[in-house]
Amino acid sequence: MKNIRMIVSYDGTRYNGFQTQPSGNTIQDILESAIKVLTKEEIRIIGSGRTDAGVHARGQVLNFQTNSRIPAERWTLAINARLPEDIVVLRTDEVSAEFHSRHSAKRKTYQYTIDTNQFPDVFTRRYRVHHYAPLDVSAMRDVLAALVGEHDFTSFASPQSTQPSHIRTIYEAELVVGDGRLDIFVTGNGFLYNMVRIIAGTAIWVGEGKMEAKDIPAILASKDRTKAGPTAPPQGLTLLHVEYPE
Amino acid sequence: MKNIRMIVSYDGTRYNGFQTQPSGNTIQDILESAIKVLTKEEIRIIGSGRTDAGVHARGQVLNFQTNSRIPAERWTLAINARLPEDIVVLRTDEVSAEFHSRHSAKRKTYQYTIDTNQFPDVFTRRYRVHHYAPLDVSAMRDVLAALVGEHDFTSFASPQSTQPSHIRTIYEAELVVGDGRLDIFVTGNGFLYNMVRIIAGTAIWVGEGKMEAKDIPAILASKDRTKAGPTAPPQGLTLLHVEYPE
Repeated sequence: MKNIRMIVSYDGTRYNGFQTQPSGNTIQDILESAIKVLTKEEIRIIGSGRTDAGVHARGQVLNFQTNSRIPAERWTLAINARLPEDIVVLRTDEVSAEFHSRHSAKRKTYQYTIDTNQFPDVFTRRYRVHHYAPLDVSAMRDVLAALVGEHDFTSFASPQSTQPSHIRTIYEAELVVGDGRLDIFVTGNGFLYNMVRIIAGTAIWVGEGKMEAKDIPAILASKDRTKAGPTAPPQGLTLLHVEYPE
Repeated sequence: MKNIRMIVSYDGTRYNGFQTQPSGNTIQDILESAIKVLTKEEIRIIGSGRTDAGVHARGQVLNFQTNSRIPAERWTLAINARLPEDIVVLRTDEVSAEFHSRHSAKRKTYQYTIDTNQFPDVFTRRYRVHHYAPLDVSAMRDVLAALVGEHDFTSFASPQSTQPSHIRTIYEAELVVGDGRLDIFVTGNGFLYNMVRIIAGTAIWVGEGKMEAKDIPAILASKDRTKAGPTAPPQGLTLLHVEYPE
């Protein structure tokens, strides 16, 4: 039995998220079907975590157990030939039996992108949220700075979260101003359901002057989802990369 | 009667090109329908030139005559509200009666983008052509340099071209190496049917070693389409901007 790890990128636009669910049409379903065509095995892949419907990934990580004799370096080409053009495997390697893409993950980085052009850029419309009103970038940076560290993020999680603990650590959170775009990058040891989208939605509200950055500590302390800003739309969010101890 | 000029961007993926044709579903058709909803007028727009099926634009220019009293600065918002998300008007202004987006154009610039990553980038797959084999960038630049100037471009035009003259001037042609991408930029006083795509296809063939850059002058002199390289796929091509005397 081999333990195979893959790094996968996908355009999440037309999928119901990464993880298998009753309504079907998930990235996981498509990948498992493609593996089955290759190996004739009923394989269950383990992703580093879910991504919501409409959310994208540049470096999602998954692993699975297989009896296939396909060498690790041949997997990437073989599976890409059996995948739709909006899901691409970037790398495959064989890892030790202990590797588990979710449990072993140490840090994840997400990117949330806002299109600040007066009219939306047609070429990136599926990967950004259009927001042309002026945004106070300095206040948005204050929001991100106030979230860095170990906190109970209940106020920044969907009430549907089923996690036993809502304590997570954000290592880095920054906002980069680009040409017609703002990018929020957040790195943490793990993220709750909708957490990055609520962080982005809150930063946008503060940028618009609808909330104040100085209230973030009180919002965290309240452990009340209704105190934070809205959940920003999924299409602006991309899972950039997942880091493991090496 | 007012003469209105618009700058339009579009993702050409799902259209049969810019210009109205019997099979329908063109950018021009969509724009004329949106204008008709606004003004109740049967308007014929004039584009700076065609773009092929699947080709994109950041700065296509068009103009049309209207009796509408909508002020120029209100047009952009009003028409974008009536357009699909893959066509966006970026600017509208009122111009003198003599302005004609095709006849008045002095220079046009196109971009052709090649994705050189080992596996295609999912986020730009509709706007680049994937080509992972090594390419000789220096030889490709020699191709572009040999095409600068005034030439008869019959060898670089579709045999279906109906233009009375195939003499055109290329002012600038350069290749820029980026992260996982090569961009070819070509600026000229006008382009024949498929001309930029044949230039890109020829540059790629030379980059692969299938042809030699030193043969470009002889290929031009032959006035024979079969001597140049293939017509590169449409999705890599974008009309960047059109310049007018001011």
